[in-house]
Amino acid sequence: MRELSERVRRIHLSPIRKVAGLLDEARKRSDIISFGGGAPSLPPPEGFLEEFTRLLQTNALRSCGYTGTKGIPELRAAVAADVKRYGNVGFDPAREITLTTGATEAIYNVFMSLIDPGDEVIITDPTYLGYRETIELAQGQVKFLPVEVEDGYQPDSEQLTDLVSKKTKAVLLLSPDNPTGRIVKEDFVKTLIDLAQDYDFWIISDEIYKHIIYEGKHLWVSSFPGAKDRTITICSFSKEASIPGLRLGYTMAPREIIDAIEKMQQYSTLAPETLAQFALVKYLNEDMKSAYLRDVVLPQYAKRREQMGKMIETHLPLAQTTRPAGAFYYFVDMREYLSRVDQTEEEFTEQLLNQTGVAIIPGRYFGDNGTGHVRMTFVTEPVERIEEGIRKVAQFLNAPNTERTFHDC
Amino acid sequence: MRELSERVRRIHLSPIRKVAGLLDEARKRSDIISFGGGAPSLPPPEGFLEEFTRLLQTNALRSCGYTGTKGIPELRAAVAADVKRYGNVGFDPAREITLTTGATEAIYNVFMSLIDPGDEVIITDPTYLGYRETIELAQGQVKFLPVEVEDGYQPDSEQLTDLVSKKTKAVLLLSPDNPTGRIVKEDFVKTLIDLAQDYDFWIISDEIYKHIIYEGKHLWVSSFPGAKDRTITICSFSKEASIPGLRLGYTMAPREIIDAIEKMQQYSTLAPETLAQFALVKYLNEDMKSAYLRDVVLPQYAKRREQMGKMIETHLPLAQTTRPAGAFYYFVDMREYLSRVDQTEEEFTEQLLNQTGVAIIPGRYFGDNGTGHVRMTFVTEPVERIEEGIRKVAQFLNAPNTERTFHDC
Repeated sequence: MRELSERVRRIHLSPIRKVAGLLDEARKRSDIISFGGGAPSLPPPEGFLEEFTRLLQTNALRSCGYTGTKGIPELRAAVAADVKRYGNVGFDPAREITLTTGATEAIYNVFMSLIDPGDEVIITDPTYLGYRETIELAQGQVKFLPVEVEDGYQPDSEQLTDLVSKKTKAVLLLSPDNPTGRIVKEDFVKTLIDLAQDYDFWIISDEIYKHIIYEGKHLWVSSFPGAKDRTITICSFSKEASIPGLRLGYTMAPREIIDAIEKMQQYSTLAPETLAQFALVKYLNEDMKSAYLRDVVLPQYAKRREQMGKMIETHLPLAQTTRPAGAFYYFVDMREYLSRVDQTEEEFTEQLLNQTGVAIIPGRYFGDNGTGHVRMTFVTEPVERIEEGIRKVAQFLNAPNTERTFHDC
Repeated sequence: MRELSERVRRIHLSPIRKVAGLLDEARKRSDIISFGGGAPSLPPPEGFLEEFTRLLQTNALRSCGYTGTKGIPELRAAVAADVKRYGNVGFDPAREITLTTGATEAIYNVFMSLIDPGDEVIITDPTYLGYRETIELAQGQVKFLPVEVEDGYQPDSEQLTDLVSKKTKAVLLLSPDNPTGRIVKEDFVKTLIDLAQDYDFWIISDEIYKHIIYEGKHLWVSSFPGAKDRTITICSFSKEASIPGLRLGYTMAPREIIDAIEKMQQYSTLAPETLAQFALVKYLNEDMKSAYLRDVVLPQYAKRREQMGKMIETHLPLAQTTRPAGAFYYFVDMREYLSRVDQTEEEFTEQLLNQTGVAIIPGRYFGDNGTGHVRMTFVTEPVERIEEGIRKVAQFLNAPNTERTFHDC
């Protein structure tokens, strides 16, 4: 009787962890240039950090005590005001917003709250790798909407229309997207909303990168006509405030969904972390956020994005990619190079790490349609190391095959 | 198609929240004496709080960055050493320990990792109310082992033996227990381990109150002969370090279980909160913990426990209870009083709150066998307010029925 449950045997450990393991090994040997992870590389705003000390000095009991499952009302109110300011869409902080343990918990509990066995959820392929496993954990069926580099990784409205059916429980859209950095087009969102109305399904809009935008503007799906009462918007403080480790996100949705998520949250985590909740009230209310994004985050990341783009263009001329409009990544079609060296992208990235110390992520991890691609994060390393890293990738690919043997050092 | 999932429609919002709601309402009107919640009422150790500031000043990037899903190796190593020191049982920090978002996430992911539809899990009745819903979320069947005040809320080995079958996937034991405060007897644990071997099921030992002990000693179930390879031990920093809001716990188990929990954690929360993880390394390694428990936590809570016990004995002579050996609560059989006033304990506690401002929790919330009982926390209020609160309970119960009408103020 001591077998594990079927559900846990069915899901997989994230393959990103495999890369992390290789990275740990490699780090012992040499100086690694990481284009691997998707974590911010800047410290959070100073005033935000100072707030922690003040909170602990003035009211440690409350700052370390439980909050309600949906989080403190002050932060939910601050979120509502923030979303009104940036997205011009209004949510009731008492009924339509819950704070979550990162966006991860939100995604998990949204799927657990919606999906019965056999319900279908449509996601793009490639996209963030956690969706697929989580949908399957909730016993749903994943349907894939392929996106291609030649279309700028834009999903196609007609293909979506073909995929939608009476079995569709939800369509999940991540914009700006991980791994492709694309911001979805307005027309696609309009088609999506029309279909959602016709087929009566939910739109799950993952907007965790909404403030990390270099070109164009973020589309607040819930602000489109007809969208709000069927859209579940997932957000996070991890990327915008550079605090992924503090595990705080928020979800905005019609009351019935927030009520359902709250029930799930009670048993999955009980409540979100308290101290960061209080500190984030200050971050949102004092306009710390707009200054931090404008003066620190976006200039830094934009410069790195620019430089990585130039380096790819110059040194990897056979690679196909698009300039990411938002988020942290270049998603690069390497099939021309991989066929030359006769390797899968998984073999390539592993050898690349072992031999040159440059870490990048195989594209297949984000969906079958990412096969032959790689994801390269540009936010982790400073400009000069981005240059060095791409040069090393190019050298590795251009070196005669005979040199491509593993050498310990 | 926009219905919620069957699983989320089946589970219930914790009834403790109903009390919290009433409490919020009541708080506006008057000064509440709370015997309601189960949260520590002392600030955490000062050195622990100072560590937050130091961490943020010296390495904000790492202190707010992601950790691995199982948490940082430093804290897992510190936990292993701590458990060795206090419980004399050894766990491999790399393979047999995972850090979790509170014990809540651990309980959730343990059940999700073990239970297939129809599997049975045995819990005592009454006990912590989250188990039942979580087992049902995981599609398990709950079997109840009743405990009674006249037995000091000790579970009976023979009754356990009768309940166990080939369908038993796990027996969950909480010791010290919430709501009864009882520490389970060694004989019962031995029977449990024998049965687990015979029927090949898992023992889930929830030891979150292991350091909150006033009489007797904690039983580390995994340290019993034959137990370790079939025991999953769930612990938390919430009670011992007075940091429930920082949401950190840990689970120790055979590697296959830790691997399964890790997979679930990846999709339920991704990783535990980082900043508190680093600060807790100091808390465990500097022996801050033993001084804090010995000099601050236990003396305070012991005094309050003592006084609440005396007050119950003196002012509620018809109530039946036991002195809790550990944890935070008196669980009191009020049936004599309730039959006099012809009320359920739910009606009684609601009126009591409205009319006297004293908050206590209906016993039925912890299981059907808790009907007619109430749970009273003694850690929240200082001694003089404990005295005042129990006096008010007694006055309320002894007042003529005619006075028991709701009055707004």
